[in-house]
Amino acid sequence: MRAARFHAAKDIRVEEIPAPQPDDNDDKVLVEVEWCGICGSDLGEYLSGPYTIPSPKTGPHPITKSILPVTMGHEFTGRITHVPGTLEQQRSGNNIPLRTGQAVVVDPRFFCTSCHACALSATNCCETIGFLGLSGGGGGLAEAVAVMPGQVYVLESADGEGGNRDDGGEVDLAAAALIEPLAVAWHGFKLFLSTQSDYDDTATTALIIGAGPVGVAMAFVLRACGVSNVFVSEPSKSRRETLQGMKVVTEIFDPTVDNISQRCRTATPAGLGVDVVFDCAGSQPGFQAGCESLRFRGVYVNLAVPRTPITIPLGPFMQMELTYKSSLAYDQGDFRETVDAFMEGRFAGVERMITGRIVLENIVEKGFEELVQPNDHLKILASSKGWDFA
Amino acid sequence: MRAARFHAAKDIRVEEIPAPQPDDNDDKVLVEVEWCGICGSDLGEYLSGPYTIPSPKTGPHPITKSILPVTMGHEFTGRITHVPGTLEQQRSGNNIPLRTGQAVVVDPRFFCTSCHACALSATNCCETIGFLGLSGGGGGLAEAVAVMPGQVYVLESADGEGGNRDDGGEVDLAAAALIEPLAVAWHGFKLFLSTQSDYDDTATTALIIGAGPVGVAMAFVLRACGVSNVFVSEPSKSRRETLQGMKVVTEIFDPTVDNISQRCRTATPAGLGVDVVFDCAGSQPGFQAGCESLRFRGVYVNLAVPRTPITIPLGPFMQMELTYKSSLAYDQGDFRETVDAFMEGRFAGVERMITGRIVLENIVEKGFEELVQPNDHLKILASSKGWDFA
Repeated sequence: MRAARFHAAKDIRVEEIPAPQPDDNDDKVLVEVEWCGICGSDLGEYLSGPYTIPSPKTGPHPITKSILPVTMGHEFTGRITHVPGTLEQQRSGNNIPLRTGQAVVVDPRFFCTSCHACALSATNCCETIGFLGLSGGGGGLAEAVAVMPGQVYVLESADGEGGNRDDGGEVDLAAAALIEPLAVAWHGFKLFLSTQSDYDDTATTALIIGAGPVGVAMAFVLRACGVSNVFVSEPSKSRRETLQGMKVVTEIFDPTVDNISQRCRTATPAGLGVDVVFDCAGSQPGFQAGCESLRFRGVYVNLAVPRTPITIPLGPFMQMELTYKSSLAYDQGDFRETVDAFMEGRFAGVERMITGRIVLENIVEKGFEELVQPNDHLKILASSKGWDFA
Repeated sequence: MRAARFHAAKDIRVEEIPAPQPDDNDDKVLVEVEWCGICGSDLGEYLSGPYTIPSPKTGPHPITKSILPVTMGHEFTGRITHVPGTLEQQRSGNNIPLRTGQAVVVDPRFFCTSCHACALSATNCCETIGFLGLSGGGGGLAEAVAVMPGQVYVLESADGEGGNRDDGGEVDLAAAALIEPLAVAWHGFKLFLSTQSDYDDTATTALIIGAGPVGVAMAFVLRACGVSNVFVSEPSKSRRETLQGMKVVTEIFDPTVDNISQRCRTATPAGLGVDVVFDCAGSQPGFQAGCESLRFRGVYVNLAVPRTPITIPLGPFMQMELTYKSSLAYDQGDFRETVDAFMEGRFAGVERMITGRIVLENIVEKGFEELVQPNDHLKILASSKGWDFA
């Protein structure tokens, strides 16, 4: 089969490798991939990796035992082509009996199940966390992948209906490839909720810093969770326009001309500022403006991986008794809830995040290289099937 | 009367000014000062202020209407020499009827009572907060001061007994001058408690970064609050020895030779790390080591004002889902609880923090200048009375 594999920075090759097969244990579900997104972390690996990708220098990943070259891609959907024989392994992560032909999205994470974080179900913080598409064990930028049944989330609701359907009444597997980045945002939102003892969604006001893929995913998550007052700060005109067209947020500010904290205070009851900031940009001016936009005892949740060290604006933290947290990936609960919300149609319109569709064969030239240049893409998806629109 | 007044950086003068008198409203309590400590913020003003002190450049403080020169000193005790006539004003901040001759400690803060923070009783974060001894309105580095009845905390317990007594059976007004810095630490501890839904003091493990005045005050607060496993990191040998002699903490580490996070993990159940870090130093290596010493979902409380910008160690924050907060001063509840704990003898031995006693007349040479040089002082107190030990 064809697979896009990372050999080194700037050296991702679409090459022929053996397709996954049922092995002696026959404990894996085989999934034929339909769509796979390119994530910011994939881009970081391409530009100057390996970072997360295990190399001869770091040694093999403790769970997959693999080192590079590894198949890329962790935001993917597809259809089941093989269900393992053992009976107790035949239910999906969302507890639906597995059948050949089912449309699925895959939780790409590997975790140890035994470390302190895993024992608390915080598998996103597993000490040896790995990802399909980064840590070995296969990836979504390939024609097929073998995964454990618990990693598979069947895209059917309890009544057997699909959500976010396309015209044919089937679930839209391109839109469903956005479930993984949506789960990242979902976890960030739940991290905020964990700080709230008396939470009222309809009264909550939020500021999102940055309308890139994570910022826009956060906007959809907040709408899905009933947060009715959502502001966004984004310097790029075209990104502001894209988000405006999605009609999922209250107001979008331009930090190159708007005083963000002033705008947030004007837009919140009694001029107090927003309850929570979700930083999806990772810049120092954004951090400063975000802190100054928060209400007394507000919460700052960081979802970004900044390129340069970020210093704490001590004044607002002291005078406003702010809380800072950083969000990493998602756990099983987050992933399941995000799948459920998707199937319930609570992310309606999210497919507008897809700004490019390419075929796997072109993943370097029309995918990674496209994203390395200045661009306003939100999400480029690669198809591992149907090369006809190449 | 004599008062030490700030005119400019490096220009504090002990000079003759009019003593406070009952004014037309007769709404102030007059206090004859006995002891007043020098705080780190006082030292900052002396070295390179004015910062908090209102100057012609910043304009007068909104509450006191004063600008420099201002009388310094906000950590002070004394005795009441005049109680205002109006009946409803005759109870202290700790709700004890005021009488001439009573030993008192003063909450030096001014706050507006009407801003959002004040409305939430978070008077420590008042938008126009000011301090006696910094913002005008008098100060403790003087022979006398006039304060509102609610700022006065009578150093008597409900049964009329004094706590932390000296040999004469009277409350020790020198030790009681430490109540203000103890209240600063008390607030930091309560900020940690505000993040804990199921708090168990006897199981709590804490790391204090820095054994300067705030760090040692925090050690006393934690012991007073029943926290039984307290570790401290302090690079100065003599400060480690001073703290060791106080017998208030479990173990003291030397960050110049000890691996702090390893020591904390070794010293905590299952090697998980401490529940909370109190940063009383404000250095980048301390922040890094503190974060790495925390358990999963641990809490980092900053009480320091760092001299240089501090960058966030993103890795521990993401992988450990840490919480960061910064603590500012104290509110009325903190101050009252700290006075209560002092009167109950829960800070026994705290007077060992007093490493120098001088007379007001020598405040510059033997106070500020002494603290500007390399030194191992914890707290220098100035006496406004009894010049006999000069």
